[in-house]
Amino acid sequence: MERIRIGLIGAGTVGSGVIEILKKERDVYRNKFGLDPVLVSVCTRSPEKIRKALTDFPDCKLESDYRNVVNDPEIDLVLELVGGTDVAYSIVENALQNGKTVVTANKALLSQRGDELFSLAQQKNVEIGMEAAVAGAIPVIRSIKTGLGADSFLSLYGILNGTTNFILSKMELEQLDYAEALRIAQDLGFAEKDPTFDVEGIDTAHKISILGTLAFSRKISLQDVQIEGITKISGLDIQFAGELGYRIKLLGLVRKIGDQLEARVQPVMIPVKHPFANIMNEMNAVYYQTAYAGPGMFVGKGAGSLPTASSVVSDVLYYGSRLNKTKTPEKNLFPKAEISEANGQLVRYYLRFTTLDQPGVLSEISKVLGDHGISISSVRQNEAEKEPAEVVVVTHPATEANIKKSLKIIDGLSLIRHASVAIRLEDKL
Amino acid sequence: MERIRIGLIGAGTVGSGVIEILKKERDVYRNKFGLDPVLVSVCTRSPEKIRKALTDFPDCKLESDYRNVVNDPEIDLVLELVGGTDVAYSIVENALQNGKTVVTANKALLSQRGDELFSLAQQKNVEIGMEAAVAGAIPVIRSIKTGLGADSFLSLYGILNGTTNFILSKMELEQLDYAEALRIAQDLGFAEKDPTFDVEGIDTAHKISILGTLAFSRKISLQDVQIEGITKISGLDIQFAGELGYRIKLLGLVRKIGDQLEARVQPVMIPVKHPFANIMNEMNAVYYQTAYAGPGMFVGKGAGSLPTASSVVSDVLYYGSRLNKTKTPEKNLFPKAEISEANGQLVRYYLRFTTLDQPGVLSEISKVLGDHGISISSVRQNEAEKEPAEVVVVTHPATEANIKKSLKIIDGLSLIRHASVAIRLEDKL
Repeated sequence: MERIRIGLIGAGTVGSGVIEILKKERDVYRNKFGLDPVLVSVCTRSPEKIRKALTDFPDCKLESDYRNVVNDPEIDLVLELVGGTDVAYSIVENALQNGKTVVTANKALLSQRGDELFSLAQQKNVEIGMEAAVAGAIPVIRSIKTGLGADSFLSLYGILNGTTNFILSKMELEQLDYAEALRIAQDLGFAEKDPTFDVEGIDTAHKISILGTLAFSRKISLQDVQIEGITKISGLDIQFAGELGYRIKLLGLVRKIGDQLEARVQPVMIPVKHPFANIMNEMNAVYYQTAYAGPGMFVGKGAGSLPTASSVVSDVLYYGSRLNKTKTPEKNLFPKAEISEANGQLVRYYLRFTTLDQPGVLSEISKVLGDHGISISSVRQNEAEKEPAEVVVVTHPATEANIKKSLKIIDGLSLIRHASVAIRLEDKL
Repeated sequence: MERIRIGLIGAGTVGSGVIEILKKERDVYRNKFGLDPVLVSVCTRSPEKIRKALTDFPDCKLESDYRNVVNDPEIDLVLELVGGTDVAYSIVENALQNGKTVVTANKALLSQRGDELFSLAQQKNVEIGMEAAVAGAIPVIRSIKTGLGADSFLSLYGILNGTTNFILSKMELEQLDYAEALRIAQDLGFAEKDPTFDVEGIDTAHKISILGTLAFSRKISLQDVQIEGITKISGLDIQFAGELGYRIKLLGLVRKIGDQLEARVQPVMIPVKHPFANIMNEMNAVYYQTAYAGPGMFVGKGAGSLPTASSVVSDVLYYGSRLNKTKTPEKNLFPKAEISEANGQLVRYYLRFTTLDQPGVLSEISKVLGDHGISISSVRQNEAEKEPAEVVVVTHPATEANIKKSLKIIDGLSLIRHASVAIRLEDKL
């Protein structure tokens, strides 16, 4: 039996889930893996909340200062589950300095300051587990590192934010507009009071920067990711997408373009028959194309106490089994990615123009598109009961640059009422 | 740099894929993992087919007798890629006897004689990698063992046979009957000349017995699996399923029922909106429910040279990195599962009766069902241009035992022309 001596810092939603799983499954792990995860100490600001759960761990120390955990020579492995990037950074840094393996669910920390920590881990010859940081319960990081370890990634697409996926699903299924769906998500606890972080795509950007870095073995910084959220998507877009046989999803994506990588967060339209389009509500999924194994997809829960905790505990078992045995710790530090700014691929676009209802509108729009070499595949216009009229154009394959140039000109026309909407059709997914 | 010295036995579809991947990616593995997979020898009956590929491995020996590989002290890890259960067994047994780690893609061998080999491996303190044996390119075994290692499985469902999934997809998309779809599958190389092994569900049974054993830590033998293939499914069933909002899939499944396990291969109807229903053509998928992380799903290719080889090479890297370091080799030997013979769950059924077109048919059928406590949710009968008439009944939740008893009686009625069809509706997936 190999003991894994754990110090848990942060006993909130995820931390309390970890305590619950360790309590219920410890005997199973001993029997199945020959591993004995021992909770040596828990550090929390709200000890009253976990005192009852800890009665099953009579030898476990209760701490209020994280330094007592990271400096404890009786601890092999530190779980950082406090969140944020300040105290969390100090916790992880000190734990690594003391030669301890770290498991964390902190995507913001890893996305923003991962390299400093990975570098320190490498220096100290210890490891950092981060399965829970991206796509909660889905074992996607382990799969990238091991199950698909022999493969070479070509593209990686993630539905990685439950809040936005829930909002888009509600908009479609209950025919709501963005603001209404957001309010429901807030009422149900799926969205924060200030939802900016989720709906503007920042959370997804954190996650795709981490996943993309691991999949492509090139450091993708948060600053490398072009970010577009879902706040401009209207109920009309959702409805038109459905009529065209598509569904709108907010994707984080990294694609190989020649020797460069494209890294983005953006809403795209996915053919509704594609399994990836059927990931609804708060579920997460990762879809990939590779040189050998792909295409493939992983689906699962992206958040929640026990789902996320299950990933943390899987990491505890995995990295715990490697303690003092790994001559070559896992590598998380990679050379900087060369980022492709412009996507020169030819793809189809959905364009929506909010216009005055007057003759000549379509002719003006199509002229600008034509001037940029963009030809139109189909047009539809909902019968306008009142202005403004909504004109929807699906283009033949065009470059993003030409679409952007066209829209800039079109949005300057006097007959256009709002900024036009352009959504890429992911036909080749 | 840690060297992994490989002996490859069998250079057919998968073996030649392994050679190709090792050639293209070796430098990547050296750089990324600090691992250097070295092809020491290849054993094949058709050396002329791979002579060209091997020019990139000038030091690689070419053997015609597998004993030269399994007895070679210069080899750490043997790849058994010959298939079958006779020579393959000797290869794996001898390799293990000599203290070598083995990687195999041989589901029949593992399903039928796995325990003898796992027992020997345990005795010799070495490991057996088998990612490629189930669901080809999908890293599902690694995920069960590690990524979801902390979790506790409740159910595991697999679309694990590309041939049958291709046939069912063709039947639906091109409105073909079984025999026509089978012929197309044969023409395209997706089905064997004698398709029994696939269409009768035996291949799926091999695979689900392996996956189920690992997921539930209980030995599920091939004999434990109740097997039903797709040969009785008609174009009519596919069509009725579609009208009812379902899609028919051949599943391998293991479910926890109390302290027992249910292990089956059977065609079921899945709600078409469920992502699992959208796994079409030759793709494979595994869907699971667990105590903490689930539900979740993995999707990918189930076969093919490079997809399967990518899993083999991932195993080479994983187990290669553990050579001489693992105090506790992975456990594959488990106590025998207690198998639940009867499924007492209440679920809805689709029933199709082929009847004479005469008055009183439905009344006779519904009387028998009623006598067994089965109430009818909906009935439909396609307008019969000629006999026989097809009567389709969807029941309210009923037990399988009662459905079987009813059908036995109904099939004895004089107005029934063929054996009736019963397909479970998987509403709770």
